[in-house]
Amino acid sequence: MSPFRASPGFTGAWEHFDLAVDDGVATITLDRPDRLNALTFEAYADLRDLFAELEHRDDVRAVVLTGRGKGFCSGGDVEDIIGELQGAEPKELLEFTRMTGAVVQRMREVPLPIVAGVNGTAAGAGAVLALAADFRVVARSARFAFLFTRVGLAGADMGAAYLLPRHVGLGRATELLMLGDRVDAETAERYGLVTRLVDDELLADEAGALARQLADGPAMAHAATKSLLTRELDMGLSAAIETEAMTQALLMGAEDHAEFARAWQEGRSPEWRGR
Amino acid sequence: MSPFRASPGFTGAWEHFDLAVDDGVATITLDRPDRLNALTFEAYADLRDLFAELEHRDDVRAVVLTGRGKGFCSGGDVEDIIGELQGAEPKELLEFTRMTGAVVQRMREVPLPIVAGVNGTAAGAGAVLALAADFRVVARSARFAFLFTRVGLAGADMGAAYLLPRHVGLGRATELLMLGDRVDAETAERYGLVTRLVDDELLADEAGALARQLADGPAMAHAATKSLLTRELDMGLSAAIETEAMTQALLMGAEDHAEFARAWQEGRSPEWRGR
Amino acid sequence: MSPFRASPGFTGAWEHFDLAVDDGVATITLDRPDRLNALTFEAYADLRDLFAELEHRDDVRAVVLTGRGKGFCSGGDVEDIIGELQGAEPKELLEFTRMTGAVVQRMREVPLPIVAGVNGTAAGAGAVLALAADFRVVARSARFAFLFTRVGLAGADMGAAYLLPRHVGLGRATELLMLGDRVDAETAERYGLVTRLVDDELLADEAGALARQLADGPAMAHAATKSLLTRELDMGLSAAIETEAMTQALLMGAEDHAEFARAWQEGRSPEWRGR
Repeated sequence: MSPFRASPGFTGAWEHFDLAVDDGVATITLDRPDRLNALTFEAYADLRDLFAELEHRDDVRAVVLTGRGKGFCSGGDVEDIIGELQGAEPKELLEFTRMTGAVVQRMREVPLPIVAGVNGTAAGAGAVLALAADFRVVARSARFAFLFTRVGLAGADMGAAYLLPRHVGLGRATELLMLGDRVDAETAERYGLVTRLVDDELLADEAGALARQLADGPAMAHAATKSLLTRELDMGLSAAIETEAMTQALLMGAEDHAEFARAWQEGRSPEWRGR
Repeated sequence: MSPFRASPGFTGAWEHFDLAVDDGVATITLDRPDRLNALTFEAYADLRDLFAELEHRDDVRAVVLTGRGKGFCSGGDVEDIIGELQGAEPKELLEFTRMTGAVVQRMREVPLPIVAGVNGTAAGAGAVLALAADFRVVARSARFAFLFTRVGLAGADMGAAYLLPRHVGLGRATELLMLGDRVDAETAERYGLVTRLVDDELLADEAGALARQLADGPAMAHAATKSLLTRELDMGLSAAIETEAMTQALLMGAEDHAEFARAWQEGRSPEWRGR
Repeated sequence: MSPFRASPGFTGAWEHFDLAVDDGVATITLDRPDRLNALTFEAYADLRDLFAELEHRDDVRAVVLTGRGKGFCSGGDVEDIIGELQGAEPKELLEFTRMTGAVVQRMREVPLPIVAGVNGTAAGAGAVLALAADFRVVARSARFAFLFTRVGLAGADMGAAYLLPRHVGLGRATELLMLGDRVDAETAERYGLVTRLVDDELLADEAGALARQLADGPAMAHAATKSLLTRELDMGLSAAIETEAMTQALLMGAEDHAEFARAWQEGRSPEWRGR
């Protein structure tokens, strides 16, 4: 447990997805396969709070986010969310959209690498969850669809209009967000949205193996890399270089780098401590 | 007509290009085919002011920008502009460069999707006009050439050094802007500059069809998507996510989203109102 | 010599690399081929100060940075740097990381185009040096490896977490910086990291030819293009367009643009003066 956790303990059970922690790897499995893992109000709230807690858990060094069944996540449920919010007041609508945005913000700001195991269609909010991860291991049959305009909403949802141009460039982001077309896994790879394209039956293994590699590695170095990749999108050159100088000086005095130096001298592989 | 148009009426006739409005689609056709649609002082001024007016016209929901004849736009005319400005005072030069920049700024800020129908060579300022559009439907025979350094000027013109790296990355943008080389349509597509690559004879139809699809769709959602894609390039993550939450809450209470919900319940296609 | 050089003269000899200046092209050759041109404290310091001086030398209009032997640059030397810094105080570590960052900042801010002639492996700091150049002419056998996490450090080093997402997008940058995998030249080209991919035996010629073309061209226009590409990454749209208007007005009143206008009228090629 992190030394700086405040009074609340950790949540014992998350009701709206499966969470399994195995030797440093937390696997979140969306678990409404009959609805292609469409999100409910409750699932959003659980995701938002889980990503806030994960930062404080010392037993997690990497995260997998995946879906059970044929879909990864089909986005906000048409009945349970879109239907429910018809006629809602501005205050209620904003409470909802702020919650969904907070999920993405926490995914980007939690200092843990997140691997999306995209086992099938990632649509709407589901496509943004995949986008907000650090790595996307994608099944060949998977599809991405930022289909917000298809339901009469802005393609700018949960930070998509911030993140997507920074992944695939402004032109392709405009195409994907404004038209809402489905994109197959090979096109997504060509655009730079796919870390590893794998056969469907290998998806779980490959996503898990990448998370395992990350969890067994120099976790503080990984966390710092993610943290700075996230923050330096919003910095100028000079501030970014100074931030990297400070961060790297910190890590050069930490255990894992010393372990590398010793291991190199002794002609062996380093044993990472993650600190 | 927009409820908030001020005293000036709309311009009756634009002298320096063709403008046709057909059921929500405004088509701007550059019309100096003998000069590959090279721009004059007057054409720049007309473009600048047209893009300011379009925002206020309720009869336009999408725009096509294309050229007549073999070229899309060959940039500032060598005789009518470069020749004319030789020996000009700094004040005059700045008045000119500010006008050209304003065309691009308004193209990016007008809340309407713009489809460039790139029917042939897009050179210099013509390449930047294509770049400032939201979509580029490009004829196979078309070429892009950011040839500013070839005339002894900075490759940074009309916002090109801002826009191009955000489309194709810093390395390729440096190559294109500093060397000024011609790039064929297939290379441009590989770089991410092309939304749709089409046979030359299909160019007008395809560009028109995309604009038609946009004009017939949820126009307020498209406009919001463009607006936020443009603004979020200049925002940090947290501000972007909050802006999207506000915007999406607004759209969730608007007509088109309600129409989607009804249509979905009734098992029919939505009829978009654009509001 | 630049009219605004302060009291120090130019450094007569750089001890930790070769520097040759030939008619406007400065060629920096890293010269520890037995260590794949691994960097030492002294080489970093020399690079930092050379890039500060180059701006003031009127005899340099383009730069080549390359390596002797089989490697381009294998990064900070494991013995001479990593070994030496074990147990160092925070102040010393920060002095080192600030120096390495300053090399990159000066490469990006010096108003001269820099061609990296990537003759072989570019690893760690070597990969960042290649990334900080404006052009990368890359031998087919070359490899890139941002291997910082492999030594227990952050992938964010010398500005890499700022620069790389702006070249290849956030997803691929995360992959390259967090995992530290080797990337071959063809993959790097697909990602947008390669200006020209050439056969190994042609590397020196091609890198030199590109620098020659730049040095013989309109050098003030090239310099302004680089300067604005660098600065506009950190600007909003409106500021960028205004900056380009100011810059282009300046260049429209300068010699090279007038020379273009005369040459065009006389039907001959311009003779660039670089001013």
